[in-house]
Amino acid sequence: MTLNVGVIGTGMIGQDHIRRLSRVLSGVRVAAMTDVDLTRARAAAVEGATVHESGQALIADPDVDAVLVTSWGPTHEEYVLAGIAAGKQVFCEKPLAPTRAACERIMDAEVAGGRRLVSVGFMRRYDAQYRALKAAVTGGEIGAPLLMHAAHRNPSVPDTYTSDMIISDTAVHDVDVARWMFDDEVAAVTVLKPRVSAKAKAGFHDPLFVLLEMANGVLVDVEASVNAGFGYDIRGEVVGEDGTAELSESAGAVVKRAGSYAGRVPRDWRERFVHAFDAELQAWIDAVTGGDTSGPSVWDGYAATVVCETGLAALRSDAREPVVLRDVPDLYKEPSR
Amino acid sequence: MTLNVGVIGTGMIGQDHIRRLSRVLSGVRVAAMTDVDLTRARAAAVEGATVHESGQALIADPDVDAVLVTSWGPTHEEYVLAGIAAGKQVFCEKPLAPTRAACERIMDAEVAGGRRLVSVGFMRRYDAQYRALKAAVTGGEIGAPLLMHAAHRNPSVPDTYTSDMIISDTAVHDVDVARWMFDDEVAAVTVLKPRVSAKAKAGFHDPLFVLLEMANGVLVDVEASVNAGFGYDIRGEVVGEDGTAELSESAGAVVKRAGSYAGRVPRDWRERFVHAFDAELQAWIDAVTGGDTSGPSVWDGYAATVVCETGLAALRSDAREPVVLRDVPDLYKEPSR
Amino acid sequence: MTLNVGVIGTGMIGQDHIRRLSRVLSGVRVAAMTDVDLTRARAAAVEGATVHESGQALIADPDVDAVLVTSWGPTHEEYVLAGIAAGKQVFCEKPLAPTRAACERIMDAEVAGGRRLVSVGFMRRYDAQYRALKAAVTGGEIGAPLLMHAAHRNPSVPDTYTSDMIISDTAVHDVDVARWMFDDEVAAVTVLKPRVSAKAKAGFHDPLFVLLEMANGVLVDVEASVNAGFGYDIRGEVVGEDGTAELSESAGAVVKRAGSYAGRVPRDWRERFVHAFDAELQAWIDAVTGGDTSGPSVWDGYAATVVCETGLAALRSDAREPVVLRDVPDLYKEPSR
Amino acid sequence: MTLNVGVIGTGMIGQDHIRRLSRVLSGVRVAAMTDVDLTRARAAAVEGATVHESGQALIADPDVDAVLVTSWGPTHEEYVLAGIAAGKQVFCEKPLAPTRAACERIMDAEVAGGRRLVSVGFMRRYDAQYRALKAAVTGGEIGAPLLMHAAHRNPSVPDTYTSDMIISDTAVHDVDVARWMFDDEVAAVTVLKPRVSAKAKAGFHDPLFVLLEMANGVLVDVEASVNAGFGYDIRGEVVGEDGTAELSESAGAVVKRAGSYAGRVPRDWRERFVHAFDAELQAWIDAVTGGDTSGPSVWDGYAATVVCETGLAALRSDAREPVVLRDVPDLYKEPSR
Repeated sequence: MTLNVGVIGTGMIGQDHIRRLSRVLSGVRVAAMTDVDLTRARAAAVEGATVHESGQALIADPDVDAVLVTSWGPTHEEYVLAGIAAGKQVFCEKPLAPTRAACERIMDAEVAGGRRLVSVGFMRRYDAQYRALKAAVTGGEIGAPLLMHAAHRNPSVPDTYTSDMIISDTAVHDVDVARWMFDDEVAAVTVLKPRVSAKAKAGFHDPLFVLLEMANGVLVDVEASVNAGFGYDIRGEVVGEDGTAELSESAGAVVKRAGSYAGRVPRDWRERFVHAFDAELQAWIDAVTGGDTSGPSVWDGYAATVVCETGLAALRSDAREPVVLRDVPDLYKEPSR
Repeated sequence: MTLNVGVIGTGMIGQDHIRRLSRVLSGVRVAAMTDVDLTRARAAAVEGATVHESGQALIADPDVDAVLVTSWGPTHEEYVLAGIAAGKQVFCEKPLAPTRAACERIMDAEVAGGRRLVSVGFMRRYDAQYRALKAAVTGGEIGAPLLMHAAHRNPSVPDTYTSDMIISDTAVHDVDVARWMFDDEVAAVTVLKPRVSAKAKAGFHDPLFVLLEMANGVLVDVEASVNAGFGYDIRGEVVGEDGTAELSESAGAVVKRAGSYAGRVPRDWRERFVHAFDAELQAWIDAVTGGDTSGPSVWDGYAATVVCETGLAALRSDAREPVVLRDVPDLYKEPSR
Repeated sequence: MTLNVGVIGTGMIGQDHIRRLSRVLSGVRVAAMTDVDLTRARAAAVEGATVHESGQALIADPDVDAVLVTSWGPTHEEYVLAGIAAGKQVFCEKPLAPTRAACERIMDAEVAGGRRLVSVGFMRRYDAQYRALKAAVTGGEIGAPLLMHAAHRNPSVPDTYTSDMIISDTAVHDVDVARWMFDDEVAAVTVLKPRVSAKAKAGFHDPLFVLLEMANGVLVDVEASVNAGFGYDIRGEVVGEDGTAELSESAGAVVKRAGSYAGRVPRDWRERFVHAFDAELQAWIDAVTGGDTSGPSVWDGYAATVVCETGLAALRSDAREPVVLRDVPDLYKEPSR
Repeated sequence: MTLNVGVIGTGMIGQDHIRRLSRVLSGVRVAAMTDVDLTRARAAAVEGATVHESGQALIADPDVDAVLVTSWGPTHEEYVLAGIAAGKQVFCEKPLAPTRAACERIMDAEVAGGRRLVSVGFMRRYDAQYRALKAAVTGGEIGAPLLMHAAHRNPSVPDTYTSDMIISDTAVHDVDVARWMFDDEVAAVTVLKPRVSAKAKAGFHDPLFVLLEMANGVLVDVEASVNAGFGYDIRGEVVGEDGTAELSESAGAVVKRAGSYAGRVPRDWRERFVHAFDAELQAWIDAVTGGDTSGPSVWDGYAATVVCETGLAALRSDAREPVVLRDVPDLYKEPSR
């Protein structure tokens, strides 16, 4: 059986997912696509796919079994709500929505429907290295966790990237990793401002040092930078009562020459996480084909957005800001699959 | 467009490839299958696939676009020749055939047909770590190559595994890696017999230390063992005039506990090379769908078999044995894609 | 020429230094020793050494060229002041003195004398790995520094160890490393309390997460724990504008067995820093023999004590506490040798 | 007590040892020195040392307790014999003597005297990494040893270095390591000639690939090169029935920048083995001061020379050459201390 997926948003990540659905993954085809820029949608079209004039039209298309939302963040809410209304499974790239209120409207709609229809694209949960790290932690190899040290270093960002995005667009991944790693919520956020890199754009606090206090007391520190220059470097170390576990380096070969031995640091997020994106979407396709869903839930998307909103408040207040979440609806009390 | 593949041989590796074609890769379906044990073939059948009574019948099936041969090595010749006769693309698991003569008959048939129809399953060429190693070598990072050190350590082997298979079934991968890494032929083979492991079965020389002299003088040494016990450990280091390059370890996380820091060694070839198998077959599917083929050729399969035959002679003679190859037919003078 | 050293304090570290001076280092002999417990002093005596009844008597001994103070911290002031008064070079184990006021009295005395007579035992500055790290930083390999991540993990501590000592006795090394690494003062301290380890004694906040803000904006975070259990694990990573540099692991061999590859984590500070202690004292002996001194100064000892006092205040206040230092006297304006 | 050492030979290594004895090690002074070039001897003289006109005069000097022979290899025999005749402890840099016959004459003299007076300078036995490797092997962590893979890569060699010295001067260290690691003799040697490096001088076979068959069947392969260019790179991996153990890298820090993470490869043997030389001579000083000796014996020096002579024969014959040793005299049946 082949799952017919419609793609809303054919920008960079949308095009990459279209390639993935068309040429890499199993049991799926791209049945339809649309974009706010129809010319771009047509350019991205693959054989046999319908180009729709709007996301709503795409969602309504009976040839579309499930929807992939890769449009601009502020438009996610509209499409996810429409997908829920149509009773179709939706895979929404992160963020679920950029505001707490928007996430809550999505949650209300899904909860009202009584079953999970929405997955959020936090692909690190599907990365082999993060999974090895989590396996060590949950397998008890290091005892009860106490701290986590993380670094999220981007070599550079486009001109459209704003200062707040270091939290809402970059550190959001680390927020999700922390929640997933410890199966716990973030209780408070503090944002520290180290010395500013000379490479940072005017007005940017870059790097930031974000402290996440988990409800159970585990302290997570995240160095987030978007001008690291040397590569795309993702680090994570969990410290437990009996030991530590950390992500290994990802270089395929070690080269000795000219006085040193060296391994490659990935160039960008694509190189680092290509297999995680593949695994994430294949798991979703398989689950949806089986009448189910998989991956981070609306609750996960909501919590990440709320923590990032709180982080932005902390960035402004220079103080510790508590995270206030709704009670978790019953629908989300099962652990994510 | 979906490629309809027929699978001949539904043993362990055949079943794994059926899973891969059905549930992992893109643009392909398993259209048919057969096995010398029809009960096993039926048990492995996926929805919509025809179970044929023989490989010949499967190859003749007009619904089969291309053929995957995963049967017992001595039967490869018959199926590959039939595939060539039918003008269908064939992916044949290694070895192409277990004897020089059988490989030559396949080569004669393919050359007579005038176009490449056969690929051989040396999956290491698609492994990310080996590709990083080769990129360092061919990219000139270490200068002209002089030596290569390799180790091929299997934790254990089944009872059906014979002593000769350390060369013909295990070291054959290293033979192909050497030919591919240096784009050169093996000129001579010597096999040394280190101290025998207490874990080796009676009559086994295990480990072996195989020396491959490449035509251009590069010396490749391969430690091959099938009772390493501790894991499936594949090592490779190329030494050049300006430096060295070696495969990195593949662990996803490093755990510190109880006095040491440690990373995982893969349990078996599946864990180590799962992505290489995926990439190899996806490349073949994509190429075949485009009217072409990809991967190691009949010449590569022939050369590997001849080197292994020579290696077995060297194992018996305790002497250096020259490798004698045919002249390479024009069909194979292009580098493998 | 042989330097005659008198040792005040023959406890664990004193005995270790006596062994070092007598049997490892060059150009030195232990000429005299004393301890609050004279029986212990006599037990530690080496051939030819005089056992004095008090530190004051030892310092006055004309056969003692220079003094090594390894007594209990609160007694350091008395002996260091006596050494200064006698015009003898003094090597004082850390801390210089446990309070700001005591350090200031020592500083006043030394400044009044007009030349440096006192060195403080922050041995990490002599560790080969820390020196490689600092060489990378000051050599410009990673650009201007922005952050430093450190971990100071002790496997366990004796019963006499108190909760405050996590800062004043353990993290004090990291304070000195930060000052030395960036040639800058600590401007403020914050102490965070992650989830408490089940191994911590009642009333202990263990681990602690100490944030040091350097005057130039570099942010240093230190995970300090004294019940890590698995080993003595010292980590450090400096993040600069162009890259990062971190201490390597110190294992001499990597062992593959039973499903993993593993290297040893040092058992304790002795194993980890034995060569640093050797190098530190040899450098001091050589300098003193040449009429000079070497190593961290009274200013360094003072600053470390003030930062730790501030850290203890921060531990209690749960707030960011600014570090207030005297103006640096001219005597200490030269960089430490 | 201070050991008075006389140094014969004040070339590069002699000067380095004079520095070590004078300024690094404990319980020792350089009492006398000489050299075939007396001007050079005088230039190397330290305070209080007598410059003798000949090695014989130095050995006869009653102020010389023990002798360090660091002259040109062919002159070792004369001085070692004179030391034995004088009943003085001798530390002789490797080789003990360049020929089997000369080594035998030394052995005969020492055996006739009835006690060990001579130590040979194979410093790798004192290297922390080699000791960690041996500890893993003899501690049973990897089971019974089966193979050892070694590489000895020199960045370059002086013009006086001849082709044979790749075996007699370079690989000789690996010969000693193999004997020490497995507490066993080398039974046969084969020398293979890989592709020659373009950096090799005319007439040099560089690199060489030397195979040592131990009496117990362990096979040791040694890649030896003297034009590696990129650094001084010493590798060793022992393969046992249950696992493997290998020397770790020695870099103090790992630096990430410009797309890679990298650690330093030592520049030369001094950087790599400085602490091994220190430990080796300190152990000898301590033993000699205690009326004993320590380190590799005349038998070890003899066996290494014989294996290298056999290796040179193998280099010329292109064949496997058996190693023929005397019966081991009782004096050497105790394991080296």
